Amino acid sequence: MKNNLYMKIAIAEAEAASKRGDIPVGAVIVAADEKKILARSGNMVEVNTDPTGHAEIIVLRKAALKLGATRLSLCDIYVTLEPCAMCAQAISFSRIRRVYFGAYDYKGGGVENGARIFNQPTCHHVPEVIGGIEEEKCANLLKDFFALRRK
Amino acid sequence: MKNNLYMKIAIAEAEAASKRGDIPVGAVIVAADEKKILARSGNMVEVNTDPTGHAEIIVLRKAALKLGATRLSLCDIYVTLEPCAMCAQAISFSRIRRVYFGAYDYKGGGVENGARIFNQPTCHHVPEVIGGIEEEKCANLLKDFFALRRK
Repeated sequence: MKNNLYMKIAIAEAEAASKRGDIPVGAVIVAADEKKILARSGNMVEVNTDPTGHAEIIVLRKAALKLGATRLSLCDIYVTLEPCAMCAQAISFSRIRRVYFGAYDYKGGGVENGARIFNQPTCHHVPEVIGGIEEEKCANLLKDFFALRRK
Repeated sequence: MKNNLYMKIAIAEAEAASKRGDIPVGAVIVAADEKKILARSGNMVEVNTDPTGHAEIIVLRKAALKLGATRLSLCDIYVTLEPCAMCAQAISFSRIRRVYFGAYDYKGGGVENGARIFNQPTCHHVPEVIGGIEEEKCANLLKDFFALRRK
C-alpha cells in the first residue's frame, strides 16, 4: 500500500512535468527507515535546459544535499519509468537500497533493457529492483504525451 | 596539437579537483566550429555533496545553459578519464559530436569497458570516440591521488 502511495506521488510529479512541456516521468526518494520523503521531482530537461535533468538525477542530487552525504544507503527510489543507463549508474553510485519503477522502457531503459547496468560485472553496488508498479498508469502518461505531440 | 591543448586544460581541472579532495578527473567542452571553450570543470562529487557530480555531467549542464539548448551537436568533449556509463549516456543524450579521453578505466569505464554504452543497440546517438590522449599523465594523476589516500 505504502509503495503505491509513493508511486502516486511520483505520478503526480510526472503529470506536473508534462504540463511544463517535459516528458512525464517523476521520481521520489524515501528514507526507508523513517518512511520520510527526502526529494520529489519530475523531469526538468526542457524547463532547465539540462540534458541530464531526468527526474532520478534531480532527486538523487536533492536527497544527497539534504542528507549531507553522497551515499543514500538507507534510501529507496520510486520512479514512474524504468531508469535509463545514466540514471541507473547514478542510482548505483548513490548506493540506493531499492528501485521501484512503473513502466518498462523497451527502447530507452538501462535496467531490464539496453545496457542492463546492474548486471554489469563492473557495477559495484546493485540495488534491489521491483518493476511494474502502477505500470499501466505510468505508461499511459507517456503514451498520451507523445500522442498529443504527434498531432 | 590543439587537441592536446584542450586535454591540458582538462588535466588542470583534474589537478584542481584533487586539491579539493575530489577524484582528479577534469573535462572541457569545446564548440568545434569556433574552437571556443564553453565549459570546464573537475569532479565535484565531494565539494558539492553530489553523487552525480562527475566532471562530464557538470560541463554538459554548463554548456547547455550557455547555448540555451539541450543538444550540443557541434561540440566536442575532452575528459581525462574514460567516461563511466552515467556520463557516456549523458554525452549521448547531449548529442556531443566527439569524445576525446585520456586514461582508460578498466574498472569503472562505460565506453570501452563495462556497459559499453555507445555499442548498445538502444543508444540513439553515438559520438566519435578517441581514447588515450595524454594517457600516462591522466592515469598518473589518479594513481598518485589514490596512493596518497592509502597511506
